[in-house]
Amino acid sequence: MFTDNTTAEIDEAVQQAWDAFTIYRNYSLAKRADFLRAIATELENCNDELFTITSAETNLPEARLRNEKARTIFQLNSYADACERGNWLDVKIDTANNERTPPKPDLRKTLTPLGPVVVFGASNFPFAYSTAGGDTASAFAAGCPVLVKAHPAHEKTSTFIANLIFSAAQKCGVPKGMFAHIYGKDFKVGKQLVMHPNIKAVGFTGSYIGGKQLVNWANERKEPIPVFAEMGSTNPVFLLQEKLNNDPEAIAKMFAASITLGVGQFCTKPGIFVGMEGDSLITFTTTLAAELKNTSVGLMLHKGIETAYQQNATNALQQQDVKNLLEFTNQNDNLENKLSPTPILSSTTAKAFLQNPILHKEVFGPYAIIVRCINEEEVLQVAKNLEGQLTSTIMATLTDLQNNENLIDCIKNCCGRIILNTVPTGVEVVEAMQHGGPFPASSDSRFGSVGADAIKRFARPIAYQNWDTTLLPDELKSENPLQIWRTVNNELTKAPIN
Amino acid sequence: MFTDNTTAEIDEAVQQAWDAFTIYRNYSLAKRADFLRAIATELENCNDELFTITSAETNLPEARLRNEKARTIFQLNSYADACERGNWLDVKIDTANNERTPPKPDLRKTLTPLGPVVVFGASNFPFAYSTAGGDTASAFAAGCPVLVKAHPAHEKTSTFIANLIFSAAQKCGVPKGMFAHIYGKDFKVGKQLVMHPNIKAVGFTGSYIGGKQLVNWANERKEPIPVFAEMGSTNPVFLLQEKLNNDPEAIAKMFAASITLGVGQFCTKPGIFVGMEGDSLITFTTTLAAELKNTSVGLMLHKGIETAYQQNATNALQQQDVKNLLEFTNQNDNLENKLSPTPILSSTTAKAFLQNPILHKEVFGPYAIIVRCINEEEVLQVAKNLEGQLTSTIMATLTDLQNNENLIDCIKNCCGRIILNTVPTGVEVVEAMQHGGPFPASSDSRFGSVGADAIKRFARPIAYQNWDTTLLPDELKSENPLQIWRTVNNELTKAPIN
Repeated sequence: MFTDNTTAEIDEAVQQAWDAFTIYRNYSLAKRADFLRAIATELENCNDELFTITSAETNLPEARLRNEKARTIFQLNSYADACERGNWLDVKIDTANNERTPPKPDLRKTLTPLGPVVVFGASNFPFAYSTAGGDTASAFAAGCPVLVKAHPAHEKTSTFIANLIFSAAQKCGVPKGMFAHIYGKDFKVGKQLVMHPNIKAVGFTGSYIGGKQLVNWANERKEPIPVFAEMGSTNPVFLLQEKLNNDPEAIAKMFAASITLGVGQFCTKPGIFVGMEGDSLITFTTTLAAELKNTSVGLMLHKGIETAYQQNATNALQQQDVKNLLEFTNQNDNLENKLSPTPILSSTTAKAFLQNPILHKEVFGPYAIIVRCINEEEVLQVAKNLEGQLTSTIMATLTDLQNNENLIDCIKNCCGRIILNTVPTGVEVVEAMQHGGPFPASSDSRFGSVGADAIKRFARPIAYQNWDTTLLPDELKSENPLQIWRTVNNELTKAPIN
Repeated sequence: MFTDNTTAEIDEAVQQAWDAFTIYRNYSLAKRADFLRAIATELENCNDELFTITSAETNLPEARLRNEKARTIFQLNSYADACERGNWLDVKIDTANNERTPPKPDLRKTLTPLGPVVVFGASNFPFAYSTAGGDTASAFAAGCPVLVKAHPAHEKTSTFIANLIFSAAQKCGVPKGMFAHIYGKDFKVGKQLVMHPNIKAVGFTGSYIGGKQLVNWANERKEPIPVFAEMGSTNPVFLLQEKLNNDPEAIAKMFAASITLGVGQFCTKPGIFVGMEGDSLITFTTTLAAELKNTSVGLMLHKGIETAYQQNATNALQQQDVKNLLEFTNQNDNLENKLSPTPILSSTTAKAFLQNPILHKEVFGPYAIIVRCINEEEVLQVAKNLEGQLTSTIMATLTDLQNNENLIDCIKNCCGRIILNTVPTGVEVVEAMQHGGPFPASSDSRFGSVGADAIKRFARPIAYQNWDTTLLPDELKSENPLQIWRTVNNELTKAPIN
């Protein structure tokens, strides 16, 4: 329906983005915040046709889409607030001392935007992590133009929302070129964007293969650029003994709901459970299997995702020493319901898990595997051998925690967020959130894609030495006109500089 | 004299580093600071034999070495102070709200150390950017073990200082393995270190070729790791018209001293001057040439650097439309003085410069080129086509600045530090310093290697959700026992949480 943009059109869009950057980069924080809020308002006021379009493209039910729209609006507004507060600029000022030999210069450091950013949105969050989602909002807040490549699985939705951004830009007088919407089913479109010399950063949410390809292209450039790719996670759950003994059924029920939430199509879906063999683990397993069997999940996002789910789950089940704990039948196996999968639960030994990397891989969809350990040493070995994760969850009593400090250190070491006694699904949009983790969960563990700190991804420090205070950016001016927090000679303060 | 460490020895050192990491990562900020201060004390108390050794290895005069030693001690102490202040952890706390539907979780974010770091020091800073230099100090502050590969050009110095670190570690009871000193003239040693799965980051100061090789190896790993490589810079100086007209001689004299400081062997040596053709530029050029001719520079660091200087300068001078403004003779061309180079000054047109990438390259040593522009548009084109730089300097009156906003934005865009009306040499060790810049000046422009913010390079965010407050790291505990600044529900405060 939508034809791919031509090479010439893409070049033109990047050129316009660069031209817009030369103006927008000097926008005040307040004006950037206005732009974000204007996009939020457009989204708030748009008609319900959006839900019809998106539901048809993604199979997501309207209730879920209403929630996700509210989340997207909240993100835009909260990033606008954070942008204006200015703390993310991490302003540092060291004043001059002419008495010293040699004289100490005046130095003032702030963040400066990187330049045009390409955003590849997620199929599972058509609003919140797509066209006007977190990457776009944080790039605008940082001072960067955005070129969104429309997700091939929801191009109509993307077009609808792109038009809202165009409308907000026009109302705010934001330069043409600050936003572009690019169509490209062919991978060459994405490659041209990432390789273009005037593109300075990339945001991506999706598969490992897709994300790693973008990272590779970015590294092959004459001037390599940062890629913030969130590439999936198995979100291991460690069931510590006393906690598990206390109430294996309740824990199983809580996680059955988390595994099947959104048809298991969340990047924080718990996919691996690690526990010690024994009665409690058996009760947990039996209850979890029964709960999953009784859960009727909805439709998956699209045919490609459903096929991958069946293939990856089947592949995992065929590995040595893997037991299928649920009958693997698709009771709705007819054309109409082809996209509605059966939840799958499997079980294996720590030994088999440690030897087989296939079992470490994410199966996107309502699938989980239980890893049975025969002693604490095996639990530790599993923790030590896990790849980078967005989240890890520990189910534990205080005694469990006190008795397993070493294990907990290992678990911390592989994840961006560590959760105690609750589920990893549900990613709160707050500054204290970390959504990102060691490779391969994300391509750059020093940054996250949820919460206003995501803004920092698209800026870099610049120091002004011996500069005229009237010509400095507002945040560095001696009188502190923005009234923001600044570190002056190693002390945090809002005070002006004399 | 020193033989390369074997593969097995290196594996053993990395294993010991990992074991030490499991203990040291939980050290309090105060204990980490104690370790840094203990290294500073060892350095302060060591005997003057160090200067004899280092002078023999590097040709650097004792006065310079005394200054550099003082700088290294200052770095260690100031990073210790910053480590303890804890602001670098950028703690964010968002408290729970159980009234909300769904309930809002308690989330607390801090930084966690990456793991063992390999440091490749600089030949031109045998103390401050080598064995116990900025990279080592910031990695220890972040909570990471360090493996230093001894610089082949000053292995004895490196060994001497490594022993001071070992001694400080022993006195502080810091785990064996927190520091290792590796010898490797063969590139395979560096490669083994960077490719080792238990190495989690790399610090490097040196040439583009060396730095880019490390970046490539790091990207080829199964788990890519961050490399902070500072790879050189030409540090362009823009001579704006009114300023240049006011006093071309004084400007020339100031920069003659900066070009020849330390025999031109600083990464911030000004290497390119951009100005508009005319009488003032002629006066500037004539004065600069005369000053350089009358400057007697010292010896270069070693034969390899001196050879590269002669080759690179000769190559630049042989390019089309490049004039040599000084007689290119080595008056001291005998064996004893082979390492004492002649300062070289050349001149070219903006047109030739824009067409020839060879003229954009750093010539390490007392060399500079003047780029003559025929109009303001050419000045702008030169600024737009410069690669990433550590610093850019603007010589300008207030009127010049006001009349050249577009040019100044372009200049900002390519550098990490922008300097007004003074020289780029002299890198102040303060938090407001940014020593790093867009590629190829450094491999990661979001971080810098001078000033306590360098600590942040070796840590990543981790969020604790729903955690027991007694088991949180001190900086996240509700009562704020460290009395550090934290962002609680979007407000910076030192107050405890109720």
